[in-house]
Amino acid sequence: MAPPPPSMSCRIAALFLRVLTFVCLLVSLILLTTNKIEEDIDFETIFKVRFNDIYGYRYLLATTVLGMAYTLLQIAFTLFSISTGNRIISGDGSFTFDFYGDKVTSYLLATGSAAAFAVTKELKRSEPIEGVEDSIDKFLNKGYACASLALIGFVCTAMLSVFSSYSLPKKV
Amino acid sequence: MAPPPPSMSCRIAALFLRVLTFVCLLVSLILLTTNKIEEDIDFETIFKVRFNDIYGYRYLLATTVLGMAYTLLQIAFTLFSISTGNRIISGDGSFTFDFYGDKVTSYLLATGSAAAFAVTKELKRSEPIEGVEDSIDKFLNKGYACASLALIGFVCTAMLSVFSSYSLPKKV
Repeated sequence: MAPPPPSMSCRIAALFLRVLTFVCLLVSLILLTTNKIEEDIDFETIFKVRFNDIYGYRYLLATTVLGMAYTLLQIAFTLFSISTGNRIISGDGSFTFDFYGDKVTSYLLATGSAAAFAVTKELKRSEPIEGVEDSIDKFLNKGYACASLALIGFVCTAMLSVFSSYSLPKKV
Repeated sequence: MAPPPPSMSCRIAALFLRVLTFVCLLVSLILLTTNKIEEDIDFETIFKVRFNDIYGYRYLLATTVLGMAYTLLQIAFTLFSISTGNRIISGDGSFTFDFYGDKVTSYLLATGSAAAFAVTKELKRSEPIEGVEDSIDKFLNKGYACASLALIGFVCTAMLSVFSSYSLPKKV
């Protein structure tokens, strides 16, 4: 038997958390993809680093994009559900989809954020390269900011995952 | 209303997953804490690295210890429940404890494993130090092994988290 549909206030709260997640992930994505160093060390050598030179940041990018795609889909579903009173996926399927979707997305965002934090912390300790210390510091601080925004996105998705677990139809 | 108690086969399956998690985390803990390099580079310099010099590995250690403590507690609870037919925490509390415990532990293990993988991958690319290349490679491979074992622990705990979500008493 399908559980009773969640009340309007629950749906609004879920929508707020999803929009907050999406905004955090979008800002994180923009910050991450525009993060680079390109500086002349001397007249011959240019020091170049982009976010995709660091594997931890690449993984963060992948999880952020997947998280955004899922969150956008869920925002569309919630708006449809609020405006029409029906759900796009009928019956138990909708609750099961929310449950597994929130669970997997929250794991992805948690691991993406953890990987980026760990790599940034380790790179901060590496030996400074003369002439570009400030640029590297700025680059890594932006890395921390991206990881923190993904962490906020994770916290929101984890809360939504708790809600969707309580809404799950009983089968065991 | 509390949901019906899970069948004996469900309890045995859960116990198997918990024991597997505990064994993986224990092996990971032993490998991690014994992982070190101590080698003479020349007659004056000794190259020394321990796992706790790397922040990603310290975090993995913390999550592994917390994961082991929680898993051990749950193994004791499950054995008590199988042998006496009763649960230590009565009523809905037991299911709610399982739900939040499994959820938090799975997030901890996922992030610990991700942090260790990311740091190891990044350190593998750093410039080799003459004379200790092989030792560093061995040290980092052990880091990968620890992260992989924590990942297996995470997968088991995530499966348990799905079970405990389905056993959750309905409140929404």
